[in-house]
Parts: sequence; C-alpha cells; structure tokens
Amino acid sequence: MARPRRSSCPIAFALDIFGDRWTLLILRDLIFKDKVYYEDFIDAGEKISTNILADRLKMLKQEGLIKSTPDKNNGRKIIYSPTSKALDLIPMILEIIDWSAKYDSRTAAPKEFLEMLKKDRKKLARQIRSKFKKSPTNP
Amino acid sequence: MARPRRSSCPIAFALDIFGDRWTLLILRDLIFKDKVYYEDFIDAGEKISTNILADRLKMLKQEGLIKSTPDKNNGRKIIYSPTSKALDLIPMILEIIDWSAKYDSRTAAPKEFLEMLKKDRKKLARQIRSKFKKSPTNP
Repeated sequence: MARPRRSSCPIAFALDIFGDRWTLLILRDLIFKDKVYYEDFIDAGEKISTNILADRLKMLKQEGLIKSTPDKNNGRKIIYSPTSKALDLIPMILEIIDWSAKYDSRTAAPKEFLEMLKKDRKKLARQIRSKFKKSPTNP
Repeated sequence: MARPRRSSCPIAFALDIFGDRWTLLILRDLIFKDKVYYEDFIDAGEKISTNILADRLKMLKQEGLIKSTPDKNNGRKIIYSPTSKALDLIPMILEIIDWSAKYDSRTAAPKEFLEMLKKDRKKLARQIRSKFKKSPTNP
C-alpha cells in the first residue's frame, strides 16, 4: 500500500516515516537499548501511550523498518527487531545524539559514548550494528 | 521560557524541537535552498500551512535555531537565517538524505550531490556551511 507523498525531496521522504515525536524513540529502544517487547517500549521514560505505540509499530512494520516474530520462550509474546533498513539509520541517530549533547547541558548521553562518537563514529556505528546479526529472516 | 521535557535522552531532546513533519523542511529551505522569506517557505513543494509555518518559525527562534532581521531593501520584509546551532544539524540532514536516497527509488536528491556525499561528507558539510558567514549578528 503506497503512502501519499508530499514531494520527492529526500528529507520529506524520511519525515513521512519518522517525522514525529515518537518513532525514533521506539527505534532507539530497539537499536540502542536492546528492548524487544511491546511492554519495553511502554516502560521507556517518555511515557508513550498505547495507541500511539501500536500505530507506530504497525507503520514501522509496513515501511519495512521492523519485523515481529513469536517469542520462542512464550508463544503468546511477540519479539520486535530492527531490519537493516532501520539499522541504516544508526549514523543519523548518532548525529542527533552528538548535536543534542552539544546543546543540552542536562543530556543523559554517557560521556564515554560521546568520546567514542567524537573519535570514530564509523567504528561506533559498526559496533552498534554488529549486535544484530544478519539472517535469512533479518534482511 | 523552559520547554517541558520528556526525558534527558538526547534523541528525545532533539525530537522535542524538530520531531514533526515540517520543522526540518523549513531548515532545509534555509540551509540548502537559500530561501530567506516567509513566502519562500510557503512556496516550497510540500504546501505547509500558514499557521504551522508561523508556529514553527516562532519555535525555531525561541530555540535559537534561526534569527530574523529586517530586509535592508524593504524594511517591511523579514529575512530569516539559520544560526550556528541550526548549521550544526547539517551532518544529520546529510545522513537523512543518504538514507532516503538509498530507500526511495523516486528520490529527487541530485546524483552529483549523492556522489559527493559518498565520497567525503565532512567536506560537503563544510561547503554547505561556508555559505553562511559568521558575524556578530550570526552567532
């Protein structure tokens, strides 16, 4: 199902997917905080509402940024994980962290993380990505 | 005036400023498309509404990302320009462009631009930034 597009601008293309206050926080939890369950996202500090979370998870799945699989240990639970399309956003998210740390005196970004970011952000991006192994079901 | 904060997460900090479908498009017009007037932003392809535009310009000014000065050639007109806080978002915007170009087969991102982006994105960021000279009124 095609989304309506505002323009063919690459920035508008991206914002049509994650241009809101919540979507990147879900991807943050998945990619940076090793969260996998619906309840994990609910428990994140920003207090996302269940209807916004359900809507964003559906959209992220439709857009091919996350996949959901049944939990092997509990068939009634669903495990969410980022696809390579989502992992390709790591460099952008690192730039966001860098910018916010510069302008927010109360940032929670850990000092060592920011030092690694300054030193070699390509390496840091590779390290974060390497947690997610490629497999036939994780394209 | 302090904004209410959702958390001290650097990603949430950034999204509290530009986590919406429009703000980064205004910054795009200012930084990448040499737009300076209110009407320029209205005329951009995505058809922003006047009330959203007015709201976002006010917020961007409050957050120190843009400044407004009277047009020397027409005192009744206002010229908007990005501050260094906004220009510091160039690396992030370049990552967005790179990601969108990869996943959007109909992207309008120019081929030469994407090639420069692949080759040396720090240099490209410097080139874009160099259009905006520092001055006492452009901190």
